[in-house]
Amino acid sequence: MHLAKYHGLGNDFLVLLDEIGATPADAALARALCDRRTGVGADGLIWVGPPSDGADVSMTLHNADGSRAEMSGNGIRCLAHALARSRGVDAIDVTVATDAGVRRVEVRPTDDARTVEVRVDMGDVTEASAPELGLGAKDVLGASVGNPHAVALFAERRGLDAAADGFTSIDRNVEFVLAGPGDGELTMRVVERGVGETLACGTGACAAAWAARRWGLAGDTVTVHMTGGSAVVELGSPVHLIGPSVHIADVEVPWL
Amino acid sequence: MHLAKYHGLGNDFLVLLDEIGATPADAALARALCDRRTGVGADGLIWVGPPSDGADVSMTLHNADGSRAEMSGNGIRCLAHALARSRGVDAIDVTVATDAGVRRVEVRPTDDARTVEVRVDMGDVTEASAPELGLGAKDVLGASVGNPHAVALFAERRGLDAAADGFTSIDRNVEFVLAGPGDGELTMRVVERGVGETLACGTGACAAAWAARRWGLAGDTVTVHMTGGSAVVELGSPVHLIGPSVHIADVEVPWL
Repeated sequence: MHLAKYHGLGNDFLVLLDEIGATPADAALARALCDRRTGVGADGLIWVGPPSDGADVSMTLHNADGSRAEMSGNGIRCLAHALARSRGVDAIDVTVATDAGVRRVEVRPTDDARTVEVRVDMGDVTEASAPELGLGAKDVLGASVGNPHAVALFAERRGLDAAADGFTSIDRNVEFVLAGPGDGELTMRVVERGVGETLACGTGACAAAWAARRWGLAGDTVTVHMTGGSAVVELGSPVHLIGPSVHIADVEVPWL
Repeated sequence: MHLAKYHGLGNDFLVLLDEIGATPADAALARALCDRRTGVGADGLIWVGPPSDGADVSMTLHNADGSRAEMSGNGIRCLAHALARSRGVDAIDVTVATDAGVRRVEVRPTDDARTVEVRVDMGDVTEASAPELGLGAKDVLGASVGNPHAVALFAERRGLDAAADGFTSIDRNVEFVLAGPGDGELTMRVVERGVGETLACGTGACAAAWAARRWGLAGDTVTVHMTGGSAVVELGSPVHLIGPSVHIADVEVPWL
């Protein structure tokens, strides 16, 4: 089995290109491959399957615990990067069928040969019910970006860190956000459903940017600073996320 | 750069075969490759270099934090497995020059094609000063297996877990041990210097077996049950450790 490991803002994925649909992804395979000590190790396994729903390829994402994720903004950038590499090009526009709908993805080169910048159509962010988190946040908004989110706004860093430290993942992704450091910018930590705290979350950045505009903290273009790095959210319809993907290694598992 | 990932009892290593000495190992390379999100991910990087000190090959091991380790019982099994695979054989006897002396290693096949059993000459276990750990242990013995150890004996599991949970790594490996479950067997948790708690530690198993015999809990052959699995220690002169190595994946990093 041939795979490649990529990361988007420190959120790392194994990408399995299988455009002929020869090797169906399953939860047990994802758990085995993503185990960080007895497997290759990653936050998730992305299976890139045959065309579907009119899109060029299809995306199936399992988290390291085997649970299925509808969509990942960091993951879809890695997927697009893998497709560009497989075609031997450094720029490509593709459409990807995800569990959260068809997404358009644009890959562009950067000065670093192992890094590309990817602009992803993230669909629309829609309001959802806000859960009672009891974290001492100024406000909490519920949102859907294909997958469910709760965005909690804090007034200062200490309160944010106190709430995020040791927060156990719930049935949706939870973003802990703070305005700044610059105008129209956000600082964010995220605890993903089925994963725990991660260094970055693409859909979470979109949900947080949308919430920030609702709170009057930002306009239509929001830079979101996460632990793993920064991404830019363009709050149009659809919402776009612009961020990096870095190729780490090609991986062959002869036993699979 | 071509590497392979292996694990010995859940203690995982990247092995870089470089018997012509073309790519010197260094701490920065180990940190980059071992980072679990932005790199391939492992507990350590083993560089297999040219013959040295009369041995067939030489071993240089860096932990994930870049610190240098004299020797690793789990790591040297993975090294020997990599040598057997590179020669296309499933049984091999080799000598390895480590920072803790020359070690003889015997690889034998198992029923599982990706797993071998490896018997390693671990040198001698010698007594060293026992640190004051203040963990509520029944006794603490200091030992050297090339690298420094402290073995702490507990009367029951709850006390062991209370002492090991959250124990911060110190200037030596610390083994938390309990007699049993069978006669002449040990149950052990280990916190490695520069790494934190790991699933298993080969030199730690040797130190613990040596201490168990000193305490009258075991004879010359001791099975040590660790979180990541079990190994057998033969307390001769030299001491031998018998345990598995599992090949996980071959890895190519085109950027290095």
